[in-house]
Amino acid sequence: MRILVVNVNTTVSMTESIGAQARSVASPGTEIVALTPPFGAESVEGNYESYLAAIAVMEAVRTYPHPFDAVIQAGYGEHGREGLQELLDVPVVDITEAAASTAQFLGHRYSVVTTLDRAVPLIEDRLKLAGLTDRCASVRASGMSVLELESDEEAAVEAIVEQAAQAVEHDKAEVICLGCGGMAGLTEQVVKRTGVPVVDGVAAAVTIAESLVRLGLSTSKVRTYASPRPKKISNWPPNLTGAGTDGETQA
Amino acid sequence: MRILVVNVNTTVSMTESIGAQARSVASPGTEIVALTPPFGAESVEGNYESYLAAIAVMEAVRTYPHPFDAVIQAGYGEHGREGLQELLDVPVVDITEAAASTAQFLGHRYSVVTTLDRAVPLIEDRLKLAGLTDRCASVRASGMSVLELESDEEAAVEAIVEQAAQAVEHDKAEVICLGCGGMAGLTEQVVKRTGVPVVDGVAAAVTIAESLVRLGLSTSKVRTYASPRPKKISNWPPNLTGAGTDGETQA
Amino acid sequence: MRILVVNVNTTVSMTESIGAQARSVASPGTEIVALTPPFGAESVEGNYESYLAAIAVMEAVRTYPHPFDAVIQAGYGEHGREGLQELLDVPVVDITEAAASTAQFLGHRYSVVTTLDRAVPLIEDRLKLAGLTDRCASVRASGMSVLELESDEEAAVEAIVEQAAQAVEHDKAEVICLGCGGMAGLTEQVVKRTGVPVVDGVAAAVTIAESLVRLGLSTSKVRTYASPRPKKISNWPPNLTGAGTDGETQA
Amino acid sequence: MRILVVNVNTTVSMTESIGAQARSVASPGTEIVALTPPFGAESVEGNYESYLAAIAVMEAVRTYPHPFDAVIQAGYGEHGREGLQELLDVPVVDITEAAASTAQFLGHRYSVVTTLDRAVPLIEDRLKLAGLTDRCASVRASGMSVLELESDEEAAVEAIVEQAAQAVEHDKAEVICLGCGGMAGLTEQVVKRTGVPVVDGVAAAVTIAESLVRLGLSTSKVRTYASPRPKKISNWPPNLTGAGTDGETQA
Amino acid sequence: MRILVVNVNTTVSMTESIGAQARSVASPGTEIVALTPPFGAESVEGNYESYLAAIAVMEAVRTYPHPFDAVIQAGYGEHGREGLQELLDVPVVDITEAAASTAQFLGHRYSVVTTLDRAVPLIEDRLKLAGLTDRCASVRASGMSVLELESDEEAAVEAIVEQAAQAVEHDKAEVICLGCGGMAGLTEQVVKRTGVPVVDGVAAAVTIAESLVRLGLSTSKVRTYASPRPKKISNWPPNLTGAGTDGETQA
Amino acid sequence: MRILVVNVNTTVSMTESIGAQARSVASPGTEIVALTPPFGAESVEGNYESYLAAIAVMEAVRTYPHPFDAVIQAGYGEHGREGLQELLDVPVVDITEAAASTAQFLGHRYSVVTTLDRAVPLIEDRLKLAGLTDRCASVRASGMSVLELESDEEAAVEAIVEQAAQAVEHDKAEVICLGCGGMAGLTEQVVKRTGVPVVDGVAAAVTIAESLVRLGLSTSKVRTYASPRPKKISNWPPNLTGAGTDGETQA
Repeated sequence: MRILVVNVNTTVSMTESIGAQARSVASPGTEIVALTPPFGAESVEGNYESYLAAIAVMEAVRTYPHPFDAVIQAGYGEHGREGLQELLDVPVVDITEAAASTAQFLGHRYSVVTTLDRAVPLIEDRLKLAGLTDRCASVRASGMSVLELESDEEAAVEAIVEQAAQAVEHDKAEVICLGCGGMAGLTEQVVKRTGVPVVDGVAAAVTIAESLVRLGLSTSKVRTYASPRPKKISNWPPNLTGAGTDGETQA
Repeated sequence: MRILVVNVNTTVSMTESIGAQARSVASPGTEIVALTPPFGAESVEGNYESYLAAIAVMEAVRTYPHPFDAVIQAGYGEHGREGLQELLDVPVVDITEAAASTAQFLGHRYSVVTTLDRAVPLIEDRLKLAGLTDRCASVRASGMSVLELESDEEAAVEAIVEQAAQAVEHDKAEVICLGCGGMAGLTEQVVKRTGVPVVDGVAAAVTIAESLVRLGLSTSKVRTYASPRPKKISNWPPNLTGAGTDGETQA
Repeated sequence: MRILVVNVNTTVSMTESIGAQARSVASPGTEIVALTPPFGAESVEGNYESYLAAIAVMEAVRTYPHPFDAVIQAGYGEHGREGLQELLDVPVVDITEAAASTAQFLGHRYSVVTTLDRAVPLIEDRLKLAGLTDRCASVRASGMSVLELESDEEAAVEAIVEQAAQAVEHDKAEVICLGCGGMAGLTEQVVKRTGVPVVDGVAAAVTIAESLVRLGLSTSKVRTYASPRPKKISNWPPNLTGAGTDGETQA
Repeated sequence: MRILVVNVNTTVSMTESIGAQARSVASPGTEIVALTPPFGAESVEGNYESYLAAIAVMEAVRTYPHPFDAVIQAGYGEHGREGLQELLDVPVVDITEAAASTAQFLGHRYSVVTTLDRAVPLIEDRLKLAGLTDRCASVRASGMSVLELESDEEAAVEAIVEQAAQAVEHDKAEVICLGCGGMAGLTEQVVKRTGVPVVDGVAAAVTIAESLVRLGLSTSKVRTYASPRPKKISNWPPNLTGAGTDGETQA
Repeated sequence: MRILVVNVNTTVSMTESIGAQARSVASPGTEIVALTPPFGAESVEGNYESYLAAIAVMEAVRTYPHPFDAVIQAGYGEHGREGLQELLDVPVVDITEAAASTAQFLGHRYSVVTTLDRAVPLIEDRLKLAGLTDRCASVRASGMSVLELESDEEAAVEAIVEQAAQAVEHDKAEVICLGCGGMAGLTEQVVKRTGVPVVDGVAAAVTIAESLVRLGLSTSKVRTYASPRPKKISNWPPNLTGAGTDGETQA
Repeated sequence: MRILVVNVNTTVSMTESIGAQARSVASPGTEIVALTPPFGAESVEGNYESYLAAIAVMEAVRTYPHPFDAVIQAGYGEHGREGLQELLDVPVVDITEAAASTAQFLGHRYSVVTTLDRAVPLIEDRLKLAGLTDRCASVRASGMSVLELESDEEAAVEAIVEQAAQAVEHDKAEVICLGCGGMAGLTEQVVKRTGVPVVDGVAAAVTIAESLVRLGLSTSKVRTYASPRPKKISNWPPNLTGAGTDGETQA
């Protein structure tokens, strides 16, 4: 089986890291294809960038030229999963939901530790729509940006481990979800410090996607995620050649 | 004051109709500018189209060349309001939230009557994120598509009025919100049949936007809707000249 | 248009201050009439006083001799709005709900800062009935009584600003509602300290009342707020001449 | 021990009936004193009448000249219990809460059957504030007014029994609460038809009030229900002699 | 009337203490029979022990040879009440629910103070199923085990009083429930320190059981708690003579 | 890896059928061991039987003589999963939660179709504790008992398919969970009639258990599911030889 794992930002090294993480847990016989979206931000840390990523991820998947069996949207707290479910006949798994859903099998309550404070409401909102908040003890921010996870790993580890420990002690979390696609490498350190199971969203999503395929299950098409109705779409998809030269956010 | 009212679909006649509806309730001295997004679907009736609209609306607003005091996102149940709030310093009002918020001043519970069944979960989700569900009696679908509201007005009226009456009788709604940008003209008939107040989202949004401007209030920038961080955005905005020729949904 | 703004306590200087606040945001052409209830407590800070105020406000409105277009109940967290809605055909706006409803357009979560700790549950209960708690981060007390807001303004400012700052920092509020009719003058200082938008209930209520009138909307009469059924009312309204001489609470 | 059972309307025959119902379940040694409020409506079926009753009940209790050990507010879905709790040092029991609280010991979910449709939201709101909605299957109206319960008993029985049966069959209620002070006599018929336990609020409240007294428990005074602060109350209590002659609702 | 009060652990001194507590509040004419389950743990502080207790309590009641009018399950946060309700025609009262239900008549919010941290989620879960969480401010652990309540009473008192004080100050509790069958003797000290009403579950349950009997009410048998269907039960009840010799937990 | 799949009733043919269903989806290399509890009811359809099953399942697992990697509790809506989690170091998966959790990846809302009406509240309660109700559209009963699923398969299919269709049409379910261990064979027919994905709990649980093992994740031991504390357990486990001869329910 082939699973597309789609990064939400345009930083290729993160795509590679996500792909490697996915491959490390995939079953023999599962091919992981990691995709980078054709446009968007180098890291996704807010609503504008997340909405842009939603569409970019759909374009990446829509234009992938080979058959595939499932799609993983590898952005934590990001928009867009519902759109992919409409466009595709194969299962779609969002890593935020995969992590929380898995955590619920492991403890009474779970917490998410993410990057910046501004990402917290996005994650809370996604969990709310997913119906996964009743057992969420907290969503905590480490204060490290997505890119600092790569550039200043030591400080990142310390900040994340500290918030995980606070979640276990003060918020009564019994499981920690690492709330960013780029945090997979930190699992061991968080386990060592807190003594609780730590769930990485990409890894959880791979096993769920494989399971759905194996069970022959896919998205229900009777209502919310029915295929888009045939209609005129103007000026889309964009001609990306010659698109606005890369640059600072234009807002 | 100048308020941008942005349609979420690319059907210009609907933009005009929304603009006219907004102007009919605007205060003297308020200039309404109705915008059509630069790309997207001729009607928005699902998640893919809605996510695409979210980004297209942001582009329409971002590239509007003159100053403005507030923005109204004129799509019922659509994604994207949070992105606009990040990008702008002026207030942003979503018509779904404007209608529900207004309805709550008028009765114990309100219902929304919208177009297709598939739009119901989108509206429910937006109301859930907006914290406006406690007093929502129901979201009901008339079964009429967005475009049929224009093309087969008589049938649309009948179907919508029927669902509004059911909401009042069975779901105990005391107020009806018309759940589509293109339904404004039906207010009178729904009032006549049901005897309850009927709220049009565009009209409600105009008065709320004007009120916020008059009170000197705008989006809080301390956390969720802080401006995007400066970072590299690749291949965006798109060069729309030469974009994929208009056509059927490509999914 | 004429809007009645009804104080809930019998302190005339507070009625005047509320009236002035309302006038400062009213549109040209809107006449604000500030009313003091015919009986009740000099400040309302608990359930007994609030229930008494509810009835006194209804009497003030019921006996007002001229036509009017809307009513604002200017007590934060007070009982009674539902009774006014039954008695009247024009819109009724409660400042607690007006403030919260407005705050929700400005940030992901809002907090209320009020006077005494004992007022907190009243406000929480009113927000719960109004369906406005999902996005309420906290209701905090400054520890200052209603009358101290006037008599010891400096200390009041300090205490309120401090709680607002705590709400933003610890409760993750992005907007502050000033939870008392007499706090309008403090807006500027709270904004300066916290950097978040600050909503005054009276001001918000005036713009909402004007909007409802302009949209031709009023209370739904089909069920909860139908006019009282014709029936015998004994010994009411009271002959207030010769009523119990003013004095300390008789409880 | 002496328990005051206070009717919320001014119909003396209903006060007597409520008193008799209370006496029929009181323990030996418990004296039941049934009070009629000094002013208000002949039946309470809406918010205005209920707010008026709240204050009138407080006056009735405040001016009762003998010692007492507990107070029962015998109006279903009425306002005011919190005010009584502030004014008194003895326990206060509301029959709406007493019935629901008792029902929860008897079945998985309970329903309330009340008089008019307009009373339903009042009861729902009181249950919501009391934190007793999670196991409430429904609140249903029989369509009979309070006074019709006395004047047209046969039709009342039939309508109430019918709604109780619907609650059991369709809403999955396993217990029925009779949602009006004047319904006590119907218990047997509802039991016979539905086969489920039927709780009368007045009876339940008597046993709860007795229990609290026996356990030496009364209202917590540390916060929400602290005694009113000493302050000036103007023009209250009213001089009821010479009050507005009895008449139709003046709204 | 005869009420069975069933301990959940096999420590006979605790059964006696629970029986004495029940007798101290029982009405004249009520006989309290305190039962110890035929098997199980010397103290119940977790899910395994609680599930075992659930079945053991049912066996104790099922094999009690004399008639009885009500049953009290005297374990705080324990499983099993629903099973007893199926097996019996008389009312069943759980002390967790009895305490919370009683507390709600006394203050706006209540907290539970229990033994070990690991018991907190059990109590929270039982309150959630009972629909009694809306007004629960917190469930706090004193860190003392069930048996330490007897063996090191001074330290237990101190730890419990401290948590009760924290609940009142920080969680805004207005009433405290003592969350363990063996805490009844601490009521006075907690009252003295916190100034709030303190509810003991056994005492509350006795008055509720007596009230239900007096009102002629018992468990609804139409659905959830219908008697077990006739069917083959294998190898049960166990032949306890010769059962595994007492010993450490075998897990 | 070896997974224990434990039936909750003592009907060996159902254990075999559950085992076969598990094996049909297990990965190569996974050994499925299906266990029948050492005591209990021939079918579990109520609280008494379910509590008994909880303990019997724990005994079956505790006395299984070989190593194993995960445990599946194969009773829909049954008690006991928390106890197993305390006793074991390997992951425990409940089929009710496995089915609902899987369904949430496939559609906006899901429904459960189960056997008897009396099982509905048990399932609802388990979903509530599991935090999986927000997206549950309904739990519906087919009216067929557990044993009738085997003895009258044709009628069972018809009844279950009918309720599934009602759930999709009236409750807006987009996915159906088959709410009984013995329903696995019906999947195909329900899919054919409703057109929505159908999730069997045993199958879903097998893939989840395998995934947890593969990810190296197991139950958090820091709080709720910590191992039982060392203490004296009396008269347990029972000497089952010579236990009460099999017979009708003794209630």
